[in-house]
Amino acid sequence: MPGTSDVSHSPVIAEIDFEKPGKQFGALRVPQSRNDSGWGTISIPIVVVKNGKGPTILFTAGNHGDEYEGQVTLLNLSRALDPQEIEGRVIIIPAMHFPAALNGTRMSPIDGKDFNRSFPGNPRGTFAEVLAHYVDSRLLPLCDFQMDLHSGGHGMDVYCCTALHDLDDPAMMRRSLDMANAFNAPVTIVLKEVNAGPTLLAAAEKRKIPALSSELGGRAYVNIDNLEVTERGVRNVLKHVGIMKGTPAPHPRYGKSRVMTVPDFNCYIFVPRAGLFQPADHLGAMVTAGRPAGWLHFIEDPSAPPIELTYKASGLLWCTRGEARVQTGDPVVVIAQDRAS
Amino acid sequence: MPGTSDVSHSPVIAEIDFEKPGKQFGALRVPQSRNDSGWGTISIPIVVVKNGKGPTILFTAGNHGDEYEGQVTLLNLSRALDPQEIEGRVIIIPAMHFPAALNGTRMSPIDGKDFNRSFPGNPRGTFAEVLAHYVDSRLLPLCDFQMDLHSGGHGMDVYCCTALHDLDDPAMMRRSLDMANAFNAPVTIVLKEVNAGPTLLAAAEKRKIPALSSELGGRAYVNIDNLEVTERGVRNVLKHVGIMKGTPAPHPRYGKSRVMTVPDFNCYIFVPRAGLFQPADHLGAMVTAGRPAGWLHFIEDPSAPPIELTYKASGLLWCTRGEARVQTGDPVVVIAQDRAS
Amino acid sequence: MPGTSDVSHSPVIAEIDFEKPGKQFGALRVPQSRNDSGWGTISIPIVVVKNGKGPTILFTAGNHGDEYEGQVTLLNLSRALDPQEIEGRVIIIPAMHFPAALNGTRMSPIDGKDFNRSFPGNPRGTFAEVLAHYVDSRLLPLCDFQMDLHSGGHGMDVYCCTALHDLDDPAMMRRSLDMANAFNAPVTIVLKEVNAGPTLLAAAEKRKIPALSSELGGRAYVNIDNLEVTERGVRNVLKHVGIMKGTPAPHPRYGKSRVMTVPDFNCYIFVPRAGLFQPADHLGAMVTAGRPAGWLHFIEDPSAPPIELTYKASGLLWCTRGEARVQTGDPVVVIAQDRAS
Amino acid sequence: MPGTSDVSHSPVIAEIDFEKPGKQFGALRVPQSRNDSGWGTISIPIVVVKNGKGPTILFTAGNHGDEYEGQVTLLNLSRALDPQEIEGRVIIIPAMHFPAALNGTRMSPIDGKDFNRSFPGNPRGTFAEVLAHYVDSRLLPLCDFQMDLHSGGHGMDVYCCTALHDLDDPAMMRRSLDMANAFNAPVTIVLKEVNAGPTLLAAAEKRKIPALSSELGGRAYVNIDNLEVTERGVRNVLKHVGIMKGTPAPHPRYGKSRVMTVPDFNCYIFVPRAGLFQPADHLGAMVTAGRPAGWLHFIEDPSAPPIELTYKASGLLWCTRGEARVQTGDPVVVIAQDRAS
Amino acid sequence: MPGTSDVSHSPVIAEIDFEKPGKQFGALRVPQSRNDSGWGTISIPIVVVKNGKGPTILFTAGNHGDEYEGQVTLLNLSRALDPQEIEGRVIIIPAMHFPAALNGTRMSPIDGKDFNRSFPGNPRGTFAEVLAHYVDSRLLPLCDFQMDLHSGGHGMDVYCCTALHDLDDPAMMRRSLDMANAFNAPVTIVLKEVNAGPTLLAAAEKRKIPALSSELGGRAYVNIDNLEVTERGVRNVLKHVGIMKGTPAPHPRYGKSRVMTVPDFNCYIFVPRAGLFQPADHLGAMVTAGRPAGWLHFIEDPSAPPIELTYKASGLLWCTRGEARVQTGDPVVVIAQDRAS
Amino acid sequence: MPGTSDVSHSPVIAEIDFEKPGKQFGALRVPQSRNDSGWGTISIPIVVVKNGKGPTILFTAGNHGDEYEGQVTLLNLSRALDPQEIEGRVIIIPAMHFPAALNGTRMSPIDGKDFNRSFPGNPRGTFAEVLAHYVDSRLLPLCDFQMDLHSGGHGMDVYCCTALHDLDDPAMMRRSLDMANAFNAPVTIVLKEVNAGPTLLAAAEKRKIPALSSELGGRAYVNIDNLEVTERGVRNVLKHVGIMKGTPAPHPRYGKSRVMTVPDFNCYIFVPRAGLFQPADHLGAMVTAGRPAGWLHFIEDPSAPPIELTYKASGLLWCTRGEARVQTGDPVVVIAQDRAS
Repeated sequence: MPGTSDVSHSPVIAEIDFEKPGKQFGALRVPQSRNDSGWGTISIPIVVVKNGKGPTILFTAGNHGDEYEGQVTLLNLSRALDPQEIEGRVIIIPAMHFPAALNGTRMSPIDGKDFNRSFPGNPRGTFAEVLAHYVDSRLLPLCDFQMDLHSGGHGMDVYCCTALHDLDDPAMMRRSLDMANAFNAPVTIVLKEVNAGPTLLAAAEKRKIPALSSELGGRAYVNIDNLEVTERGVRNVLKHVGIMKGTPAPHPRYGKSRVMTVPDFNCYIFVPRAGLFQPADHLGAMVTAGRPAGWLHFIEDPSAPPIELTYKASGLLWCTRGEARVQTGDPVVVIAQDRAS
Repeated sequence: MPGTSDVSHSPVIAEIDFEKPGKQFGALRVPQSRNDSGWGTISIPIVVVKNGKGPTILFTAGNHGDEYEGQVTLLNLSRALDPQEIEGRVIIIPAMHFPAALNGTRMSPIDGKDFNRSFPGNPRGTFAEVLAHYVDSRLLPLCDFQMDLHSGGHGMDVYCCTALHDLDDPAMMRRSLDMANAFNAPVTIVLKEVNAGPTLLAAAEKRKIPALSSELGGRAYVNIDNLEVTERGVRNVLKHVGIMKGTPAPHPRYGKSRVMTVPDFNCYIFVPRAGLFQPADHLGAMVTAGRPAGWLHFIEDPSAPPIELTYKASGLLWCTRGEARVQTGDPVVVIAQDRAS
Repeated sequence: MPGTSDVSHSPVIAEIDFEKPGKQFGALRVPQSRNDSGWGTISIPIVVVKNGKGPTILFTAGNHGDEYEGQVTLLNLSRALDPQEIEGRVIIIPAMHFPAALNGTRMSPIDGKDFNRSFPGNPRGTFAEVLAHYVDSRLLPLCDFQMDLHSGGHGMDVYCCTALHDLDDPAMMRRSLDMANAFNAPVTIVLKEVNAGPTLLAAAEKRKIPALSSELGGRAYVNIDNLEVTERGVRNVLKHVGIMKGTPAPHPRYGKSRVMTVPDFNCYIFVPRAGLFQPADHLGAMVTAGRPAGWLHFIEDPSAPPIELTYKASGLLWCTRGEARVQTGDPVVVIAQDRAS
Repeated sequence: MPGTSDVSHSPVIAEIDFEKPGKQFGALRVPQSRNDSGWGTISIPIVVVKNGKGPTILFTAGNHGDEYEGQVTLLNLSRALDPQEIEGRVIIIPAMHFPAALNGTRMSPIDGKDFNRSFPGNPRGTFAEVLAHYVDSRLLPLCDFQMDLHSGGHGMDVYCCTALHDLDDPAMMRRSLDMANAFNAPVTIVLKEVNAGPTLLAAAEKRKIPALSSELGGRAYVNIDNLEVTERGVRNVLKHVGIMKGTPAPHPRYGKSRVMTVPDFNCYIFVPRAGLFQPADHLGAMVTAGRPAGWLHFIEDPSAPPIELTYKASGLLWCTRGEARVQTGDPVVVIAQDRAS
Repeated sequence: MPGTSDVSHSPVIAEIDFEKPGKQFGALRVPQSRNDSGWGTISIPIVVVKNGKGPTILFTAGNHGDEYEGQVTLLNLSRALDPQEIEGRVIIIPAMHFPAALNGTRMSPIDGKDFNRSFPGNPRGTFAEVLAHYVDSRLLPLCDFQMDLHSGGHGMDVYCCTALHDLDDPAMMRRSLDMANAFNAPVTIVLKEVNAGPTLLAAAEKRKIPALSSELGGRAYVNIDNLEVTERGVRNVLKHVGIMKGTPAPHPRYGKSRVMTVPDFNCYIFVPRAGLFQPADHLGAMVTAGRPAGWLHFIEDPSAPPIELTYKASGLLWCTRGEARVQTGDPVVVIAQDRAS
Repeated sequence: MPGTSDVSHSPVIAEIDFEKPGKQFGALRVPQSRNDSGWGTISIPIVVVKNGKGPTILFTAGNHGDEYEGQVTLLNLSRALDPQEIEGRVIIIPAMHFPAALNGTRMSPIDGKDFNRSFPGNPRGTFAEVLAHYVDSRLLPLCDFQMDLHSGGHGMDVYCCTALHDLDDPAMMRRSLDMANAFNAPVTIVLKEVNAGPTLLAAAEKRKIPALSSELGGRAYVNIDNLEVTERGVRNVLKHVGIMKGTPAPHPRYGKSRVMTVPDFNCYIFVPRAGLFQPADHLGAMVTAGRPAGWLHFIEDPSAPPIELTYKASGLLWCTRGEARVQTGDPVVVIAQDRAS
């Protein structure tokens, strides 16, 4: 394909008009040479719904391909949202790292990159880097708010939550936490780190955009109960930021979101060897430091007893390993603790 | 390695003495040339516990590599079993298709074969075929009973059950069903087919050995609740066949096992296209023909509504898809119905 | 999936009723375990159009995945054919080796088998072998005529023709040749071999079914001119065998099909080394033994002159290499000669 | 290999003397560690022919491995060129991205990079990046003129042409266009973009070197007719720039090159889904907006009619899809229109 | 390629005349479909030297691709042998499993089969099986003697020897051992097994052909000293069987070959875990049961001492592991003991 | 895993305290997302032994995964070293590029990078780049001395030596050479290059740290004799730098290390084609320019004589090809010459 004239140097072409009122279904077209199609492109569906003069929010899912509650929610939202019911602009990318989502894997088979470790990206890099650069440099500047819908994928099962960083700027922190409260997941995790590395959440925070991440389940399937939380949560956020009318209200079952944090590495358990992980507790249980967290079994030697892993911190069993088979260095447990307000 | 003298033509060498009393931890050694080790072998752990003159039972797990409740149970049983507490012989292979189990996948990376589609095997075939031939021609003849512990793997989540075929021979049928009742899973599935194809269960049945298969969960992790059923079940079977003392008793929570069947293809739903499956019901729910079973979403076109899939039969939601991402022709639902006694 | 009861031992399930009048779009469902779907299946579309009591013909394309004139023709025929316009039964499989056709390659990525080297197949073999067994043992017995539509694929460009074997039985030979004349490709190639090995054409001939193969172009694209010949040819055959009304008539441009043969290995040129093949003549040219057929260039040594390849036989340039890059032993030229009647 | 002293930091070593008169066949040696050869290197053949004091031109082919008219032409030119018949210097790299050319694919199996998206390269990057850096930083500075010979590869068939960018600098534009006219392909495509991205053509233009690209056919074979144009064209260019004696003259068949352009994205058709593309017209036809450009067929559903694709612009059918099998987002048609002079 | 007429059903074509006097360089042409060359073939070089009426011997090397002393010897012999100096026929295949030899690996990348585990082969099987069938059913019947030249490959280093089986038939045993004595390697290993499985040596023995295998070094390089033994050995055998004039004489350095055997599995050491093997002794050393044979180190845990492996038998260190990195079940030591005559 | 707060931007976490006295076995934990473990990490064992106030030395091995004398030596040293016997700090990484070492290959399967071409690394790059950045920016600043233990790997066999660069700074040169003399390998190679590119040795030199590399054998096994040199050498260096008590003494067999160099490219032989390399001389032989260095054989054409390769320089045969199979451009010989002092 003849080199495309593009003053800002991203080779990505948005086949949608971000300024046009109404609802549009369009695509981000990313060039990707293949041996059987040198000028081939990959089209990433994007939806813009716009009405009047309100704020802009960007909802994304499929940042990792095997995280599904967000993808289903945003597909449904794309069709359901009526421009007449909003004031502002909603930009939706239901399956952002599209080749990974089509493949049903965290990373895509194109370049093997973790998309959420690729920000701020590179317009001359690999597919994930080119796309991350576009999202960071073109889409984030359009936004007043951003929310990236994650789940635990194959490797983890996570207790349904939103997540944000413990930001230095108290106003930004307040606005982000209000957004999390509005979403109203059972739990809100405030991560203590200031610099969260090459993630979309951190990219948004660097641009001073109130932003949320989330972990809405795991094990690479659609958890029905968490899907209900998610569908409700994105509408709550739309109401909270003033794009939709109405007020987010506490969930009938659990009321307000419980604000928690993961204070240090004692909350994690990483396995010391490859093996088969048997957990001791169900996700969401309250657990106690010093008690067994699970056992690591070794099929190569049935005479060897399993290694007993022990909690090093007390709290909520926030994350548990998604699959029994683990490799040396895999985390199998993360504990969350209530956050001092 | 110099060609091994082996009158029965299997190249597999058992480094264990099946007739020796007491407990032994040994291996089945299967030759497997690699480019960096022409005379390399793969060692599959096997345990034999023997005392006195009672019957022989073979317990196997890891027929598919990513099914774990059985693997953990048999590893624990291997260490726990005291020769003094039995009368007879217990042969245990906790991770039978060992390279698949090490890889955490249904099939092994060596030959890509489904081990449970490889019986009666072939001593000159690929790894799975050589091993299936050994299990069928050497181990089954030693047995009075056999039980192969499966779960649903990555692709399925299954309501905890044992499974057997609806056999023509009423005595064999009775003995197999008694064994299932003894195991006492919440559900027992009687599959109507006489000829179950190239599975280990069918191989045992052809040799007139009362045999059970099972589906003890799924999604490639260790389900704590099902693990408890399995640990209890294998001991119940040992008591039932007279190797261990004592009597299997009904489970305190659900009492007797509910005997069910899958009468025809109306109980299955196969997806007509690749997509993202959202289930309508939780595993184990009682569902009704004509009601929605789930929705198939399409990330490539957010403007397209999902396909609604409908139950074609009423009954227990026995199997549900393990992962959201599905390919054309994948089953996502199997319904079981009570069996007329 | 519970082992399916199947007296004839093929695990393939036809989701179509071969005896039902009218037009049906159905599928052959072939079990294919994947690591993420143990009970997965592959659905191969099949179409049956039936009316009254006439003969049965089976049309197949996509035996090799990258041969397209036949696939397009049979897809169009599937939709166009009105049961009312036929007397008999037309069974159509537009993309027989379906995973290869979806992949756009000669062989499929599932087992790497050449489907047309897999007959008579094996119900316990790999995907291609299971499918070949079904086509041979289930579909061919339903047929009075069979036609398998090939082209040259990536590796070859072939002058548009039908092909059949020089059969010992004069009546069979006559009937097959009449069918080829009816199809009315520019050329008909009579291959001298009696035993053509493990191909579908040979499988049909063994069952005494008048059968045709063909080579309707090549280079893995749709040749517009050859597509016109193919669309016309399949209707001509339907008329010839009496399923459709009407009479095949000579093509306005080239009249009758020219009957030719490839008498011996002198008609072939295989390259002696890997290199870059530059042909001397256009496909379909009349060429002369002793003249240059092309040149083999060597990018690894620009100082080395190319090897000049010379025709060893005179005749029609029937096949020419599809791609410039060749490996040792690749054929780059096949010459056809007029057949003495 | 002990670290090589290289003040300019490229690890590439030219085993040829660019300043030596006469004809030399040499190599660019690029280090490339392999698991079985840590100090391995890849040798890319290069030819230098030098005589007297005229200008320097660099001819390259095999920028993409599966584009062959240029490779054959430059191999032949390498042997044919007599230093005595020139005044100046001709540098020839007949198969520049050598591992891709050996592999017969657009990209090489070493790093999967598209070489013509790798400029200006990186001396510490992957193979393609290291080589691009060398070509850009070492070879281009030697040149007064540059020509990079492309064809359409597996994915495209292109109407034989040269190509250049519509440059801002009128003198550069004039000199480049004169060079294209001298080459005298049937068509000259003036691409409107100023910044053509990371291509060799753009790299030359950035260095103010009059430069040409070209598309001399496609489908990964050697088109005999286009080869004749190419062989004639490179000699025409040598005469035009004064390295060879004589004057380029209009082609006897088509006279002067027709100068055309591709004004906007309406000239392209990208397919909206994966399928099988059947073109409506032959390459080089004059086509009309609103008329059918082809059809997209779906083997997964023979009951579904193909999607009819429609030309959105009138003009010359400049590019057509090389293979029938297409993926979502692949271009299948590009239209060129006469350029207002 | 049109199906080839072949009454004996092997698709392999010998492009050489086994009955023609003089020296011929020809090929075995084995069909092998590729995605880019459906009618592709693989040519395996074969040499026939024939004169007068003496016996026929078949020399083969490259049965495993990474074993080189035999390949070099037979390449040299092919060129050196003058028909005038022989009486009989010498058939030479210097690189029998040709794609493996080109790849420098034990097995070929085509089907991953160990060629020496593929006899008696299958004319419809994979590449290795088709070729083994041809060698067994077509070439062996032409032979009076056979010798297959192996070395240890990447995985082993072996003390230079010939090898044969301890055959039941005393006359066959005598003739084979005489042949080994004539070859005059430092050591002759008599393997005790009667049924040596699917090897070429066993295939020859089944056809009552005196046959030898050998292990002429290892580690996938050319051992200069062993190469001298091999070059001398093949000529000694030619003299011994009467094809060449002259008499084999004892080697000046070690005199007669030492006849040894590997009596049982105590002579082997297989590693119990993956690790890094450090040998205690040099190849060819005389070692003592109970002494350290080497150490298995674990890079994953520097605090863990290595496992000390101990010789279970005394004798000559005949084989030692070729590479330090080992997997569970790999043999690292084989001991040979003098054979009671 | 929540983004980790890390002011210096390396995502690597050292689970060890570099300042704590005594001996610690710890790990460098490097994040590495996998599809089945998004928050997975790779743990690289590291050992710190510290006592008192002496200097710090860093010993590394497994920079390339298939080089073993260093790995075994450092594993043994890790366990053997008693904090009481040192004054200072010894940091040991026995298998630095850990995934490559586990895989038994030069490069790791994670990113295919040559770790010793990855310095100074990139904290946002691939696994090898992230690790190189950590070693360069975190570990080297702790060091007074550094030694990186290499061998030849699969591709080379090297005469046991240490290696250093011919540095501009005479004091640095003196200190480095003294360290090499202390190590006391049979040979010391002084490489003439100042800028050795992206290696760890060059990274240390840039930081003005006296540093050594080495080549302690090859062919990917543990050479017993060289292991003895290595074990002795690292203790000699510890004594030389004053961390251990005692004085390095000349080796009883060869006395002082012979200081040599590789003056120019005439000392190398690269093969001009792929083939089978037969060396003429044993490693360590003194060879003469103009004499045969070996022969390149061609299995694809037994009638073609091998290419004779000739030494272009006289001296010690320092490196010889590790495996017989070579590709175009592979070095097969490197000659070292005595260094004028």
